[in-house]
Amino acid sequence: MTATLLLSCPDQRGLVSRIAHFIFERGGNIIDLDEHVDGDEGLFFLRVTWDMRDFSLSGEKVSAAFQPLADEFQADWMIKINNIHTRRRLAIFVSKYDHCLQELLWRHGLGEFDAELALIVSNHPDLKHLADLHQVPFHVFPIHKDNKLEQEQLEIVLLKQQNIDTVILARYMQVLSSQFVAEYPNRIINIHHSFLPAFMGGNPYKQAHERGVKIIGATSHYVTDNLDEGPIIEQDIIRISHKDNLTDLIRKGRDLERMVLARALRLHLQDRILVYGNKTVVFD
Amino acid sequence: MTATLLLSCPDQRGLVSRIAHFIFERGGNIIDLDEHVDGDEGLFFLRVTWDMRDFSLSGEKVSAAFQPLADEFQADWMIKINNIHTRRRLAIFVSKYDHCLQELLWRHGLGEFDAELALIVSNHPDLKHLADLHQVPFHVFPIHKDNKLEQEQLEIVLLKQQNIDTVILARYMQVLSSQFVAEYPNRIINIHHSFLPAFMGGNPYKQAHERGVKIIGATSHYVTDNLDEGPIIEQDIIRISHKDNLTDLIRKGRDLERMVLARALRLHLQDRILVYGNKTVVFD
Amino acid sequence: MTATLLLSCPDQRGLVSRIAHFIFERGGNIIDLDEHVDGDEGLFFLRVTWDMRDFSLSGEKVSAAFQPLADEFQADWMIKINNIHTRRRLAIFVSKYDHCLQELLWRHGLGEFDAELALIVSNHPDLKHLADLHQVPFHVFPIHKDNKLEQEQLEIVLLKQQNIDTVILARYMQVLSSQFVAEYPNRIINIHHSFLPAFMGGNPYKQAHERGVKIIGATSHYVTDNLDEGPIIEQDIIRISHKDNLTDLIRKGRDLERMVLARALRLHLQDRILVYGNKTVVFD
Amino acid sequence: MTATLLLSCPDQRGLVSRIAHFIFERGGNIIDLDEHVDGDEGLFFLRVTWDMRDFSLSGEKVSAAFQPLADEFQADWMIKINNIHTRRRLAIFVSKYDHCLQELLWRHGLGEFDAELALIVSNHPDLKHLADLHQVPFHVFPIHKDNKLEQEQLEIVLLKQQNIDTVILARYMQVLSSQFVAEYPNRIINIHHSFLPAFMGGNPYKQAHERGVKIIGATSHYVTDNLDEGPIIEQDIIRISHKDNLTDLIRKGRDLERMVLARALRLHLQDRILVYGNKTVVFD
Repeated sequence: MTATLLLSCPDQRGLVSRIAHFIFERGGNIIDLDEHVDGDEGLFFLRVTWDMRDFSLSGEKVSAAFQPLADEFQADWMIKINNIHTRRRLAIFVSKYDHCLQELLWRHGLGEFDAELALIVSNHPDLKHLADLHQVPFHVFPIHKDNKLEQEQLEIVLLKQQNIDTVILARYMQVLSSQFVAEYPNRIINIHHSFLPAFMGGNPYKQAHERGVKIIGATSHYVTDNLDEGPIIEQDIIRISHKDNLTDLIRKGRDLERMVLARALRLHLQDRILVYGNKTVVFD
Repeated sequence: MTATLLLSCPDQRGLVSRIAHFIFERGGNIIDLDEHVDGDEGLFFLRVTWDMRDFSLSGEKVSAAFQPLADEFQADWMIKINNIHTRRRLAIFVSKYDHCLQELLWRHGLGEFDAELALIVSNHPDLKHLADLHQVPFHVFPIHKDNKLEQEQLEIVLLKQQNIDTVILARYMQVLSSQFVAEYPNRIINIHHSFLPAFMGGNPYKQAHERGVKIIGATSHYVTDNLDEGPIIEQDIIRISHKDNLTDLIRKGRDLERMVLARALRLHLQDRILVYGNKTVVFD
Repeated sequence: MTATLLLSCPDQRGLVSRIAHFIFERGGNIIDLDEHVDGDEGLFFLRVTWDMRDFSLSGEKVSAAFQPLADEFQADWMIKINNIHTRRRLAIFVSKYDHCLQELLWRHGLGEFDAELALIVSNHPDLKHLADLHQVPFHVFPIHKDNKLEQEQLEIVLLKQQNIDTVILARYMQVLSSQFVAEYPNRIINIHHSFLPAFMGGNPYKQAHERGVKIIGATSHYVTDNLDEGPIIEQDIIRISHKDNLTDLIRKGRDLERMVLARALRLHLQDRILVYGNKTVVFD
Repeated sequence: MTATLLLSCPDQRGLVSRIAHFIFERGGNIIDLDEHVDGDEGLFFLRVTWDMRDFSLSGEKVSAAFQPLADEFQADWMIKINNIHTRRRLAIFVSKYDHCLQELLWRHGLGEFDAELALIVSNHPDLKHLADLHQVPFHVFPIHKDNKLEQEQLEIVLLKQQNIDTVILARYMQVLSSQFVAEYPNRIINIHHSFLPAFMGGNPYKQAHERGVKIIGATSHYVTDNLDEGPIIEQDIIRISHKDNLTDLIRKGRDLERMVLARALRLHLQDRILVYGNKTVVFD
C-alpha cells in the first residue's frame, strides 16, 4: 500500500525537509519523489509517494494530519492512498468515432488505468455495441442547437449521481458550455487532433493538408472555457509527406490520437499532473 | 556523370513512358525515378536521374532535345547535368546568431552540399571571423528602418554580379521586401524556429514557453511574400518539459534549427523539391 | 480499378521505358511509380500502379501479356489487379498475448487491410473469445515438445484448404520448423519485441532491462530458417529511463509491437515490399 | 551560487527527510530534487540542488559537514558547489574524424559545458588545426601495435599533470587498455556509432547496412574493461531506408554521434548520472 501527495504552493525554504519529515516521523518510506520550482513565478511543485506498511496513521487520518502543514504553506494539495480511497470513477464522452474509445476500453481491460470506468455518454447511439461488449452503461443525450444546455444539465445530474471524478472527451464532437466545464475544473481531458496551437478549431487534418506540413500531431489537454487553449498534458507527432492525402492523415492521426489520449489519462490517474495558469507540470 | 530531370505538368496518359523512352532511346540508364500524381489537382510530378556514360547527346544539348516534349506537356522543368553545369552558387544571410552558419560551413567543408558557397551577407559585422576562417567573402549591409529597400537593392546587385542561385536565411533577422523575394522565387530558404504554423512571427520560443507545449519544432521553408507562410520543405521537433525554461528552449531549438535547415538545403541542392501552390513535393 | 506490378530483375538499360510503354500503349495511366537500383548488386526494383479504366486488356489477361517482357528481363514479378483478383487470405497465429491480435482485428474492422481475415490459429484456447467476437474461425493446435512437426503438418493442411496467402505471427510463442517456413517464403510476418539485431532470442525486455538501454524497439520481419534473422520490414522505438522496470518495458513495448506489426502488414498487403537476400526494399 | 549533492546508498527510511533537513537547518533552499529507488536492488539514488545564498556554511566546509550522514548511510556521494569548486578539466581524445570534436568545440564556445577544455590527445596529427583554432593544446601520441601500453603511460602522466577529470573519446579509434580505464572509472565517455548492443565492435554502419535495418543509432556510454559494454548514458536513432547506401549511413550517423555525445557529456558535467552495476540512473 502506498500514499501519494501532490502539492503546489508558493516557494519557501524547508518545504521538502518538512514534508519529508512529516512522512519519516510517522514511519513512511519515500519510494518516489519529484520536485520542481518555477523560479520566475516563485512556485513550488511536489509529488511524493511513500510506502504505508509501517505508517503510524491509518489511511483516513493521513489527510487530517497533514492539513496544518498544508495550511501553513497555503498549498493546493491532495493525498491519495491506494487500496483505501475509492478508485476514481470515469465517464467517457464519445460521438461516432470509435478509435479512442476502443483504445481506452482495451487498456482498461489490461489494467493500465487505476480507475472505474463508470459510464459512457454519447450524443449518438452509434457506439452502444462497444459499451455493451465491455458491459459499461451507455447513455445517449442527443444534442441539437436548441437543447445543448438542457441536455448538459441532465448529463451533469447523471455524473453527480454516479460520483464521476474525471470526464474524458474521446473525440466527442460537441463543445462543452462554460457551466459544464466549471463543474469539473482540470478534470475534463480532451484529445485534439492537431499539434496545438497549430490548427485550432475544426477540421485540423484538412487545415494541415492544405498548409502542406511535413509533420502532424495530436494534443491532449484539460478543457477550459477557451476551446483548444487549456493546459497541455501530452503531445506527439508523426511524419507525413506529399504522398499522404487527407484520408491518410486521418488514418495516421487516429493512431496518434488514441496513444496521446491514453498516455494523458494514465498520467492524470497516477496523479502526476499539476496545473498552474494555463500550463502543466507533469512528473513522469 | 548523371543527369536529373525535375518536371511538373498537368497529368495525362503516357508521361512516364514518353519521358523514359526519351532517355532510353538516347542510351541513358535510369538509376533513380520518383513520381507523384496529385489526383485532386490533376498534376503530375517527376524526378528522374540517369547515367550519362553512353548517352548520345553531350551535356549542353540535352535540354534542347527535351524542349519539344516539355512544350507539349506544358511542363515546368529543368535538367541538371552533374560535372557539366556550373554548380549552384549560394549566398548565406546572417545576423548575429552563429549556429546555423557554423553548421552550414562545417557541412560544406565535408562536401555535403553540391554547391559553391559564394558569399555571406549580414546586417551586422559580428560573424565576420567565421567567414574569414572559411575564406568566404563577407559583406555587411547595415539596415535601419529608413534604408531597407535601398540596402536590399545593393544586395541584389551584388547577388546578380556573383551569379547567386540560392539565398539561405540562416537566422537572418530581417524580413525581406516583396521586391527582393520576387527576384528569387522558390530560391530563398528560411529557417523558422517553431513548428509552423504554430507560433508564427516573433519570439516563437517565448510563445511556446508561455503556452506550455510539450514539444517544440523548427521549420524550413521557401520564402514568399507572406511571412512564415511559404511552402514548407522540412520540419522536425524535440520534446521539452516543465523543467525547460526559455533558455533551455533556445538551446534545444538551436540544434533543431541547424539540422532542419541543413536537411532542407541538401534537398534543394539535390533538386528533390517541386513547389506547387503553397506546398512542396519532396522526393527524398 | 487499378493494377500494380511489383518486379525485381538484373539492371539494364530501358527497363522503365519498356514497362511504362507496355502500360501506355494499352491505355493505362500510371498513378504511382517507385523505382530503385542497387548499384552494388546490379539489381533493379520497381513498383508501378496504373489506372485500368481505359486499359485495353481485361484483368485476367494482363499477366499473360506481360509474361514475355518479364521473361526477357529474367524478373521476379507479380501483377495484382484490385477488385478482380481475389483478396489475399490471412491466417493470424497467436498464443496468449492479445494486444497484437486486438490491434489487427480492430484495424481490419476499419478497413485498413485489403485482405480477408480467414482464420486464427493458436496453441492455446485463451483468445477464442476475441475470434468469436469478430466471427473469425479459431483453431487450436496444442504443441508440446513431441508433437510439433505433426501439429504443423495439420496446420499446413488447414492453411492449404483455406487458400491462405499470408501468415502473421502475432506474438505466437512457438518457433516454426524449416518445413513450415519453406511453405510460405516471404509470406510469414513476425513481430519481434526488440530492436533487432539487439536482443535476439528469448526475453528481450528482460535483456534490455538488464543491459540498461535508454531506448527499446520492436521489429517486424519475414520469417526465415534463422530465428530473428529474416528480412526486416519495419522497426520503431520508444524511450525508456531508469524509472521503467520490467513491467513498464513490457507495457510500453506492447504499444510498439502492435503498431509496428500493423504497419508491416499494411505494407505487405499493399505489395510495397521486395525481398532480396536478407534485406527488403520498401516502397512506402 | 548553488550546491549539488549526488548520492547513492542502500535504501532505508528517512533518507530524504534527513538530507533535506541537513540542507534546511543550514539555510539552504532546495531548487531541484530527483530521487529514485530501485526496489529490486534495494538501492536509493538522489540528486538535490540548493540555493547557497543564505547557507550557514561556506563552500569548502559543506562536504565535511555532510560526511557523518554519508558515513551512516554508507553512501557513494559527492557535493559540487558552483563557482567555488574548480571546474572540471576535460581531455578529448580523437583520431581522424572531426565531427564530434567540432561539435564539442563549438558547444564549448557557446558555454553549454560547465568545464575547462584542457587538452586534446590524438594518435594522429590530422586535427591539429582545429585545436589551434580554438587555442586548445594538442598532443600527438602515435600508436602502433607494439607501443600502446607505453604511449598510454605517457598519456596518463600528461592527464595527471593537467588534473584531468573526464576523458571524452570523440571517435578515438583505439581501444584503451584495462590499466588506462582503471585510472578513470566512470569518467571516460565514449560514443559508439550504433544502437548498442546491436552491432558491437568494428564497422557498425557496414554491419547495419548488411543486415538491412530500418533504423540506425548511436550510443554514448562510460568505458569499462569490456568493449562497448559499459553503462549506457544516452542513445538516439534515425530512420534509414533501402535508398541509403553505406555512405549515407555514415553521413546520417555523424549527426547522431555528435548530438548523442554532446548530450551525454552535458549530463555528466551537470552531475546528473549515477552508475550502478552496468547501468545508469540519469536525472535529466
